[in-house]
Amino acid sequence: MSGPLLTVKASAQTTPSGNPLPSWNDGAPKQAILDFVRATTDTASPNHVPPEDRIAVFDQDGTLWVEHPMYTQVMYCLERVPAVTAGKPALKDVEPFKTVLSGDREAIAKLSMRDLEEILAATLTGMSVDEFDAEAKQWLETARHPRWKRPYTELVYQPMLEVLRFLRDNGYKTYIVTGGGQDFVRVYAEQVYGIPPEQVIGSAGGTKYGYGNDGKPFLTKEPKLILNDNDAGKPEGIHLMVGRRPYAAFGNSTGDREMLEWTGAGAGARLKMLVLHDDDAREYAYGPAQGLPDSKVGTFTSALYDEAKKDGWSVISMKNDWKRIFAFQ
Amino acid sequence: MSGPLLTVKASAQTTPSGNPLPSWNDGAPKQAILDFVRATTDTASPNHVPPEDRIAVFDQDGTLWVEHPMYTQVMYCLERVPAVTAGKPALKDVEPFKTVLSGDREAIAKLSMRDLEEILAATLTGMSVDEFDAEAKQWLETARHPRWKRPYTELVYQPMLEVLRFLRDNGYKTYIVTGGGQDFVRVYAEQVYGIPPEQVIGSAGGTKYGYGNDGKPFLTKEPKLILNDNDAGKPEGIHLMVGRRPYAAFGNSTGDREMLEWTGAGAGARLKMLVLHDDDAREYAYGPAQGLPDSKVGTFTSALYDEAKKDGWSVISMKNDWKRIFAFQ
Repeated sequence: MSGPLLTVKASAQTTPSGNPLPSWNDGAPKQAILDFVRATTDTASPNHVPPEDRIAVFDQDGTLWVEHPMYTQVMYCLERVPAVTAGKPALKDVEPFKTVLSGDREAIAKLSMRDLEEILAATLTGMSVDEFDAEAKQWLETARHPRWKRPYTELVYQPMLEVLRFLRDNGYKTYIVTGGGQDFVRVYAEQVYGIPPEQVIGSAGGTKYGYGNDGKPFLTKEPKLILNDNDAGKPEGIHLMVGRRPYAAFGNSTGDREMLEWTGAGAGARLKMLVLHDDDAREYAYGPAQGLPDSKVGTFTSALYDEAKKDGWSVISMKNDWKRIFAFQ
Repeated sequence: MSGPLLTVKASAQTTPSGNPLPSWNDGAPKQAILDFVRATTDTASPNHVPPEDRIAVFDQDGTLWVEHPMYTQVMYCLERVPAVTAGKPALKDVEPFKTVLSGDREAIAKLSMRDLEEILAATLTGMSVDEFDAEAKQWLETARHPRWKRPYTELVYQPMLEVLRFLRDNGYKTYIVTGGGQDFVRVYAEQVYGIPPEQVIGSAGGTKYGYGNDGKPFLTKEPKLILNDNDAGKPEGIHLMVGRRPYAAFGNSTGDREMLEWTGAGAGARLKMLVLHDDDAREYAYGPAQGLPDSKVGTFTSALYDEAKKDGWSVISMKNDWKRIFAFQ
């Protein structure tokens, strides 16, 4: 990543009054964050954490940015299909590519998991890592979210940007731990969240080292999954990539359960928080935990809610705890 | 890792004269390091590198510390066998454990690769990650190298500690990229090299998330290889764990070839260096590149030497370029 990308576009701002979380309403979740940071950074605190151990992990989809009506990376894969089939015309009349090219939204929504995997493999693998970076970057500059007609990278939650900044200002290394593709998220994480590529952990495929005709080496993205960074894969991925147990973990769905459990099982003060999507007016409302509609994209089940209550995890109500959702509002 | 481990025991010291590489003799390799750092950090230089892109990677065995007569981790595995068979007495009369327990060095040296893999699996997997950390830490405190009768962690090359420190002082993030076990090296890398666990990339097995009888989650080390961090696995591992191409790479054997190629294929100033073991008096001499004895542990072939010459990689002669090898000398 080159220099200009380091600029954090929608960065958290500490207000003149010194409030590090200006987009948060007063309440238990905001207080939990403030208390945690004080307890782990005050050298007089029994729960003081040495700076090198200050690790905070964040799920991305639904925790840092919008995941509805569909994960952004899935939108990328679907919208890349015309470019891929242009290069391989034989695919145009073959399913599932034919359906995607038809633009028939109802038919696309009915594609099976196997179809989707085929589309992911065709659009995320087979090219060099540099080619993929360029393709994803170009798409992110032009693609727009269907509801807000804005770049996906603007649909990040301003209150969470403030938490990221607040933790970093207090010596925490912030990591993204996402079920999404590691290479995809790394393309924009530095610009959007101020999180460098080496602090993005995600579902990752293998690469294969080879040489071009000019003798120069390159890495090709392979359709071989190395890390499925969901559910138990999240603590496993954190062990693989960080080798330390986090002190703070943020998620929003059942896929984040084990990451929060793993974080909470450590000694001392540990912050475990779940974002609840209960604001249909400003964003979306889903998750049966609160009698909200069920959703395949970011499920917040009753069982997860029960575990959160039992184990003292904080549930953040987007409706009640956040003054605003996006920087542009 | 807790606070005290952060103390770098045998750390590089800048001399009062401000010489950042006091253990290096003047010569081409020392000059290459100084020139590279100046070229990439001077903002007026055409090869200036923004701080966030300053990544330097180091092989470990034979590059940062002694690898002869045998890789330290293999010594660990062999010496752990009595403890493992004490817990599973049925193994005592089964090969290859029987041979290891016999203490017959000649017979042990003749064990096949398959035997060795069985010993590695028995001593490196099946326990929780916390148990493994404790076992490895305990061994490192008591084990001694057969030649110097000192802890292995003291057998690090003082000139390389100075390079690590010099690069970090100039904004470089230093990574270990080792064919050795990632979990093993992470146990001592912070104490010995000042390199935190998240900057240690190595051969890595999978872990499995589970719950103890107390309901607490834990990760068990599995005998399933996720990353074979040798040869092409090194650039593949760097892509997986860092996501940026390094600007500097240090190695000493054919297993480091692709890592140096990958580093060198980037634009601008790139530092590629190989340590040549040609000092039998102070350390060891091996590698057919210079007519030295061949070795299965850290091979420096003629082909590697030719590639180094052709592509402008620096070859560091331990005999001629290093004033001293170890801090204790």
